[in-house]
Amino acid sequence: MTFGIYHSNVSFETQGEIEIIDLTNKLASLVSEHKIKNGTLTVFNPGSTGAITAMEYEPGAVEDFKRLIKELAPKGANWLHDRIDNNAHSHLRAALIGPSLTIPIRNGELVMGTWQQPVFLELDIHPRRRRLQVTILGEK
Amino acid sequence: MTFGIYHSNVSFETQGEIEIIDLTNKLASLVSEHKIKNGTLTVFNPGSTGAITAMEYEPGAVEDFKRLIKELAPKGANWLHDRIDNNAHSHLRAALIGPSLTIPIRNGELVMGTWQQPVFLELDIHPRRRRLQVTILGEK
Amino acid sequence: MTFGIYHSNVSFETQGEIEIIDLTNKLASLVSEHKIKNGTLTVFNPGSTGAITAMEYEPGAVEDFKRLIKELAPKGANWLHDRIDNNAHSHLRAALIGPSLTIPIRNGELVMGTWQQPVFLELDIHPRRRRLQVTILGEK
Repeated sequence: MTFGIYHSNVSFETQGEIEIIDLTNKLASLVSEHKIKNGTLTVFNPGSTGAITAMEYEPGAVEDFKRLIKELAPKGANWLHDRIDNNAHSHLRAALIGPSLTIPIRNGELVMGTWQQPVFLELDIHPRRRRLQVTILGEK
Repeated sequence: MTFGIYHSNVSFETQGEIEIIDLTNKLASLVSEHKIKNGTLTVFNPGSTGAITAMEYEPGAVEDFKRLIKELAPKGANWLHDRIDNNAHSHLRAALIGPSLTIPIRNGELVMGTWQQPVFLELDIHPRRRRLQVTILGEK
Repeated sequence: MTFGIYHSNVSFETQGEIEIIDLTNKLASLVSEHKIKNGTLTVFNPGSTGAITAMEYEPGAVEDFKRLIKELAPKGANWLHDRIDNNAHSHLRAALIGPSLTIPIRNGELVMGTWQQPVFLELDIHPRRRRLQVTILGEK
């Protein structure tokens, strides 16, 4: 087997806060494309108003998670960053959840639960074009 | 030194929400067993109602963290996912904390603090059999 | 290209809760010093009263994030760990945010957003000397 480091990008348009995007197919395609058998995949958002985690991508759960995030870090709660911009809550939510996720690759597949999906959270107030960095450390 | 990718599983029974399980010995055993000297270990929960983080595994702190999680994402707060299942809060808590942790391995040991333990959080409402994925990228 | 595993430490003094320290230059220096072209960098805090995430290191946003953390896990809220120590809230905040961050390295640079910085959060109540573990898996 040959070990290597493989960089890719996953790009897409978002609609602004809060949108939760299922990354499963985008990430699984990269594992297939590079023919990786074993290793890890790290997906990273280079930006401070988006975040990455994993969850069951079921419509109710997705809406519930949006509501939870809004309640934990409310918009317009006299935040200081809102004096120079108007998305303080976007920054807070992103810093709380975090910008990345590392997923194992085993036997040519991402090791995820059946009802578990890697997701990108668009937390910024406007639509954005996102370009996630995906780095695979793995064997072909 | 020889670099390699090593997959293992850590399996155990849980008692249902909220149980916090110390993974230190289970993970340290895998590092010893594979004779890894340097690298990283990623422990990942393939499922959407459990989470992984690190904390001091002191009985008071463990109870405090259970209480904090319950307060941050309360059970039965009119969540939409509860219309099709009854564990919406389990999903929310898992997505908030996240499913994985990457720990450095140096000189044959996990680099953890003296009073710091990697932990699995059982957030589901019923007892579960969990099977965590552990992937080591390292040198023997 | 030669693949290798590189361990380093980043050490600094902190002032106690809550201090947010920008790690950008410290981490970028290690990538340069080891002449890494491609791979991943994992920065890990071996301790249970500090945390690592990423955010825009803008003074207002930094103060806002301190305030959010204080509100989410308040000090002295009758926590059990305070019966044996007086920093239960420090532990809770650290377990919530998490101890590590993995950042891609591409073309010799950390792949971060323009307004995104990796940060260490000092959550303990006293000044501390911190020694973060940095592990790079990469090609020269």
